[in-house]
Amino acid sequence: MPNENDTTCRVRFEPSGLGTDVPVGTTLLDAAQRAGLYLTSLCGGDGVCGKCKVVVSAGNVDAPPSALLCEEEVRSGTVLACQARVRSDVTVALPRSHTLDTSRIVVHAEAHGSESASAEGGYPLNPLVRRLHLALAAPTMQDQLADHERLGLAVRDQVDARCLQTGLGLLQQLPARLQASDYDVTALVAQRGPVAEVLDVEPGDTSASHYAIVVDLGTTTVVGHLVDLTTATTLDAEAAYNSQMHFGDDYIRRIMYAEEHDAFGEMQRRAVADINGLIEALADRHAIDPARIALVVCAGNTAMIHFLLGLDARRIRRSPYVPAAAHVPPVRAADLGLRIHENGLLYCLPAVGAYVGADIVAGVLATKLHEAHALNLFIDIGTNGEVVLAGDEWMMGASSSAGPAFEGSGIRHGMRAGPGAIERVAAAGAGQLAWRTVGDEPPRGLCGSGLLDALAAMLQAGVIDRTGRFANPDDTRIAEGPDGLEFTIVAAEANRNAIVMTQADVANLIRSKAGVYAAVEILMRMTGTDANALEAVYVAGGFGRHLDVASAVTIGLLPDLPAERIHFVGNTSVAGAKMAAMSCRAFAQANEIADRMTYVDLMNHPDYMDAFMQANFLPHTDIARFPSVPERLAAARAGNP
Amino acid sequence: MPNENDTTCRVRFEPSGLGTDVPVGTTLLDAAQRAGLYLTSLCGGDGVCGKCKVVVSAGNVDAPPSALLCEEEVRSGTVLACQARVRSDVTVALPRSHTLDTSRIVVHAEAHGSESASAEGGYPLNPLVRRLHLALAAPTMQDQLADHERLGLAVRDQVDARCLQTGLGLLQQLPARLQASDYDVTALVAQRGPVAEVLDVEPGDTSASHYAIVVDLGTTTVVGHLVDLTTATTLDAEAAYNSQMHFGDDYIRRIMYAEEHDAFGEMQRRAVADINGLIEALADRHAIDPARIALVVCAGNTAMIHFLLGLDARRIRRSPYVPAAAHVPPVRAADLGLRIHENGLLYCLPAVGAYVGADIVAGVLATKLHEAHALNLFIDIGTNGEVVLAGDEWMMGASSSAGPAFEGSGIRHGMRAGPGAIERVAAAGAGQLAWRTVGDEPPRGLCGSGLLDALAAMLQAGVIDRTGRFANPDDTRIAEGPDGLEFTIVAAEANRNAIVMTQADVANLIRSKAGVYAAVEILMRMTGTDANALEAVYVAGGFGRHLDVASAVTIGLLPDLPAERIHFVGNTSVAGAKMAAMSCRAFAQANEIADRMTYVDLMNHPDYMDAFMQANFLPHTDIARFPSVPERLAAARAGNP
Repeated sequence: MPNENDTTCRVRFEPSGLGTDVPVGTTLLDAAQRAGLYLTSLCGGDGVCGKCKVVVSAGNVDAPPSALLCEEEVRSGTVLACQARVRSDVTVALPRSHTLDTSRIVVHAEAHGSESASAEGGYPLNPLVRRLHLALAAPTMQDQLADHERLGLAVRDQVDARCLQTGLGLLQQLPARLQASDYDVTALVAQRGPVAEVLDVEPGDTSASHYAIVVDLGTTTVVGHLVDLTTATTLDAEAAYNSQMHFGDDYIRRIMYAEEHDAFGEMQRRAVADINGLIEALADRHAIDPARIALVVCAGNTAMIHFLLGLDARRIRRSPYVPAAAHVPPVRAADLGLRIHENGLLYCLPAVGAYVGADIVAGVLATKLHEAHALNLFIDIGTNGEVVLAGDEWMMGASSSAGPAFEGSGIRHGMRAGPGAIERVAAAGAGQLAWRTVGDEPPRGLCGSGLLDALAAMLQAGVIDRTGRFANPDDTRIAEGPDGLEFTIVAAEANRNAIVMTQADVANLIRSKAGVYAAVEILMRMTGTDANALEAVYVAGGFGRHLDVASAVTIGLLPDLPAERIHFVGNTSVAGAKMAAMSCRAFAQANEIADRMTYVDLMNHPDYMDAFMQANFLPHTDIARFPSVPERLAAARAGNP
Repeated sequence: MPNENDTTCRVRFEPSGLGTDVPVGTTLLDAAQRAGLYLTSLCGGDGVCGKCKVVVSAGNVDAPPSALLCEEEVRSGTVLACQARVRSDVTVALPRSHTLDTSRIVVHAEAHGSESASAEGGYPLNPLVRRLHLALAAPTMQDQLADHERLGLAVRDQVDARCLQTGLGLLQQLPARLQASDYDVTALVAQRGPVAEVLDVEPGDTSASHYAIVVDLGTTTVVGHLVDLTTATTLDAEAAYNSQMHFGDDYIRRIMYAEEHDAFGEMQRRAVADINGLIEALADRHAIDPARIALVVCAGNTAMIHFLLGLDARRIRRSPYVPAAAHVPPVRAADLGLRIHENGLLYCLPAVGAYVGADIVAGVLATKLHEAHALNLFIDIGTNGEVVLAGDEWMMGASSSAGPAFEGSGIRHGMRAGPGAIERVAAAGAGQLAWRTVGDEPPRGLCGSGLLDALAAMLQAGVIDRTGRFANPDDTRIAEGPDGLEFTIVAAEANRNAIVMTQADVANLIRSKAGVYAAVEILMRMTGTDANALEAVYVAGGFGRHLDVASAVTIGLLPDLPAERIHFVGNTSVAGAKMAAMSCRAFAQANEIADRMTYVDLMNHPDYMDAFMQANFLPHTDIARFPSVPERLAAARAGNP
């Protein structure tokens, strides 16, 4: 029998059954965190984003009224977890939107099955950490070379290094290890530029069992690939949501949170725990002893890498926006708590700056933008939107002010890709829209590709005009909602609310796409280049291959180019990190990319605001830039989408 | 009142007054060790060397009779500390020979006062660890370079390095440190080949205060120099006896002891404590904060370096005589317990092999043997005797079987240089000998230079013949002693024993010099060279500048060359280590010397035993090799020494 005078309450979460004891008055959001559950929360607990809805099925909570809850929700016991404080033992049901369904995280198309990144990338297979079987000659009176030098000579036979390093700890154990195995050993050797470090010496030949974990540490998702370094094969991939999400959906919010709550250590612990979770899952699935994994290579934006390494991230959000480090040295994985070989290393790819991170450098490496002799464009649309324009001998990178609208942030019914997410929307003629959900389940919201499609389809169907405003006040699908006008994409039914796009949602999405387009525009202007001259446009990020090119061009996200010049390349962060893991030369290229790329600070560029305002139309104020769009709109309105 | 039934006894040592409580039955040698006193002991406690004599002035001990004690000694309560077991509280007086008088340790003639090793050695001043004052530009919106890269660029401006390393710990603190000092900092940068490592970043300009400790870690003595790295000036020197001496006078015995007693850790602790003692004394004397010392550079034989670093030294005494490492990486000094700057480094000079160590490499560096284009010879006579013969483009090194006879080991009245040690002996005509002691104090024994002089003077005075045998049985100074015939150098007086040279002592000294000469001989034969072609002979080691060239030639220790070609160069181990400390290029040269030098294993050389036997004469079987000696002998016997 719940007793409101108890100071401790039991909170149980369904369907997982996870529970925790918390003091009376604790918010359900905090309780969930203690139970190890990560509820979606964009606003960091301010009660304004409405993403953290849960249903209290038993027990009492204090929850202030909120305009973000519809009547049906209030009736069913739905509350905002960040606002509801426990008064008694409670049972809380998490809607499916909170379930960590990672099945739709883009883990790179080549993740499963055989693949040779080195052959693909043109780099020789020469991993950052190698396992070298060394059948050394045992010393004799005719060959009295010291153990360290004996090992060193054999390593240098196989590794091109000007300088060989061996830690004192290993040197102290070396003679015993060499003698115990009759000088037949396997050396674990890490390379960094001209330096090779002997990490460990194991008895016998263990060179056939040599793995790496390659990680894209994203703001929203963490993706890990298990790579067999002996064959350059990706064995498997695993993904999880970034468990820092509880502290804010974007990294600026997380830095603010960490500053306010002295929580940089917590951010680091979560990053490490997330990666450990992937390592454990991947190693378990393939029955690989984690000690056989001696290398983790990680890409991610600059804030994520700073969190992971415990570097000071404060100035990433403060002028003059300076990271602690762009290039970071390899770090002993165990020093961070990563559970691989005890002497294994973590290499992070280098960043260009605070807002163009290692994920973008990895993307350039993966798409070989730095090697192209023609004009190429790389766009990464994730939680942030970064753009790289590359010509012969030059590269410029910028981060747009896009914001994560295409990830559903700030969008009333935005959600991550998962069962029930509307992933495709199309104008079906006569002003009607057709849609399809992930898993063909009942619709619950719109994921990124669905939002993009919806915007294009609403334009094509005449629901909105080129400014994004609802065009026809007589359209019965448009009604006044709590945030102003909203357009119903899926009508309400007995047991669920309608799925709508509000006027504010549309404006948000347009701002997001305008940010990306304006970034491209400025880089083009600065370099005196023209979109038509683009040999290729690479679109990377969470959209992956689900994105519809025509929709992206229709709304003016991408330049109006023939479809064959636009390539959806998926998670290039993990792809580039994997190339670096497999090849020292590729890692060196990443360093060169980071050094060579010129960072353009759009916020301080005199023309950016103008370009951004011009792009705040569908597809653009200057329709002449999008010659294919008027035709397409006309065709759609004529019933031929 | 001492009580023999007590299980614990108090042992008090005079004149220091140091004391300790030990179980009844403990030897006085062990008790002294517990009290922190290091008694001379060659045999490791077997009761056969007679070096550990002490006087029991109160209380009871069980001490078996020993032929090593004369009647007077027995009467005065003298016992062998290693054999005497305490039965009650006792007071023990240590003879002055046990007092650690370091005043005579050769610490390198240039130790005190101004000096520029770099100018001297021809190497540019570019220490292994540098303090670089960096007035960095603070970042602005126009200059958003990350802190790590900002620092790195400034470091590379001043340091020639292909690869820059910074530890994660420092990176984590870097932004705060740079901001706190307005980007005006001093970086502590260590160099190792193509790699530079930023060890620390301090606020403001601390570059003017930058010191190193340079150490010769000898088997018998540990010498430390305090060097001002900003001016390449040696400020001071300090010496101590190696406190491992308790475990054996030579390193082979110490390795045996460590194996038997699992005492490698103890050996390391003592080496570290000895060096810390020197650091503390030097820093105190100059009121230098140890944190301003960021570099220790150490030379020493291979066993000593292994002990210091905790490397496995077992096979140094076992076929095939392989060290754990010849080149050792720089080690964080704090990891070993050395009390300098918390991130400061210890660099050890490289060795050639188990028996030609870093001290010899340092000696070659100091004497520039590796750069000479003519034939040069380097002889280091210390606890061991090492020889390097160098020609144009080649170097050969060998270790003789000399043994530490010239350090007094195995010599009845041998002692270390200290007050009362006979340091010079000369034939005074008419078969008489004249002598002089250190400090003109009453004679107590013979130190190295005295032993060498005595041998020459005894030959010149006709006391011994060229085989080393006592020549005239009628000489009243020759009598039968416990070890056979002995020659009285200083007659007994009421309160002291006579000082004698026994037939065995003479044989020991001849064997020692023969070992060195035979080593030179073999290297000459192997290279087809001749002593007369020697441009210079450098004699390094404990003898220092006290050695008499004529005596050394007379007994056949050194080739018979004009005196101007023979140079006594003192402690070249510390001199070479100092050059390396002050110049990366000199350190690189040391590595090259170690790699280039060919080690000759004399024990397995077919001609060595023959050469050794031939050298077992005074000066040599083949007198034609020493043309100046017959003249000198004739002159001496004619009364004109």
